[in-house]
Amino acid sequence: MGIIITIGREFGSGGRELGRRLADELGLAYYDREILLEIEKQTPYCLEYIEQVTENKPLPLLPIHYGMSFSATNDPNLSQSIDIYAAQKKVLQDLAAKSSCVIIGRCADDVLKDMHPVRLFVYADMPSKIIRCQSRSKEGEKADPRSLAREIKKVDKNRAKYYEFYTGKKWGDKANYDLMINTSGRSLKEIAHGLTEMLAPYLKKD
Amino acid sequence: MGIIITIGREFGSGGRELGRRLADELGLAYYDREILLEIEKQTPYCLEYIEQVTENKPLPLLPIHYGMSFSATNDPNLSQSIDIYAAQKKVLQDLAAKSSCVIIGRCADDVLKDMHPVRLFVYADMPSKIIRCQSRSKEGEKADPRSLAREIKKVDKNRAKYYEFYTGKKWGDKANYDLMINTSGRSLKEIAHGLTEMLAPYLKKD
Repeated sequence: MGIIITIGREFGSGGRELGRRLADELGLAYYDREILLEIEKQTPYCLEYIEQVTENKPLPLLPIHYGMSFSATNDPNLSQSIDIYAAQKKVLQDLAAKSSCVIIGRCADDVLKDMHPVRLFVYADMPSKIIRCQSRSKEGEKADPRSLAREIKKVDKNRAKYYEFYTGKKWGDKANYDLMINTSGRSLKEIAHGLTEMLAPYLKKD
Repeated sequence: MGIIITIGREFGSGGRELGRRLADELGLAYYDREILLEIEKQTPYCLEYIEQVTENKPLPLLPIHYGMSFSATNDPNLSQSIDIYAAQKKVLQDLAAKSSCVIIGRCADDVLKDMHPVRLFVYADMPSKIIRCQSRSKEGEKADPRSLAREIKKVDKNRAKYYEFYTGKKWGDKANYDLMINTSGRSLKEIAHGLTEMLAPYLKKD
């Protein structure tokens, strides 16, 4: 069986870039938006809709989670969200079975738990996340820090609810990860390099 | 200024051994029980009493934390605990100023925050912590898993309350650490070796 590294990440923490660098250093496949393109092929939904659904909580007031016995629902939005989650689950399982890889987000740590992935969570303090988001935006388009902070909080809240809805576990809770990395004020390039060494004992299969 | 690594750790997670190995690999001084011996020299209290006080919450029902304005108390136990904490703080500051080092526990991440330590937190799941505790006990003295689990929870609860009382922050909350390491089912020797590489970017002084 191959090596699977899953990366949960706060918005603006640099988790995606860290995952890309890690995949490069370790010579592994890297899956992020590629997963959405696969879901598009396997379902009747368009990419934009899939993207929106997989970054948002399915319904605000449903405490039950998908892993438990779940009877048919009359709500078309919830029904489509569950359809897409099921397709995503299958895509993840197929990709992980094919070759060793790094997977960003998408509850992959839980979906692939039987394959014993190395589960990372990447986070940072708010000032660092704001600086990182600003550095990504085009010249002349820099959002002000307060509205960026609101946006970052909103995205992370949605990620937390999505994760909790489908896994029944708390997003960002250390019990669900092998290594949690605070990137505040640090170079992702250097962290990725060190992480390659750090992960060696985790990558040994039992 | 030197390199300071602080290690918060759940009981039975192997944080102490990891710290010792890390200090060896990086060629740093290592401080754990040495701190208690220093406090003994500087206060009228005996080692056993210092040990007991620094592993337990000072008082169960006081929400105020030591960093805030704190008027004299009539409770002799609390007063002695605060005395010992003040002595411990001074010992930590003196040791950290003297040379680069690894420090286990003792709210060192907060006490030394102006020196920008690299703050680690080491944790593990309960089955792994039980196995680690059992492997430390002498032949024929193995405690049963249920009573060990109770003991582990009790020690960690006390550590959490002690930390919260003196720092006003939550023990084990990722916001307070740079790297959180789950040692469940892993070799501490290999983790320490990888960690040495992983820490390189964190050890660069800004």
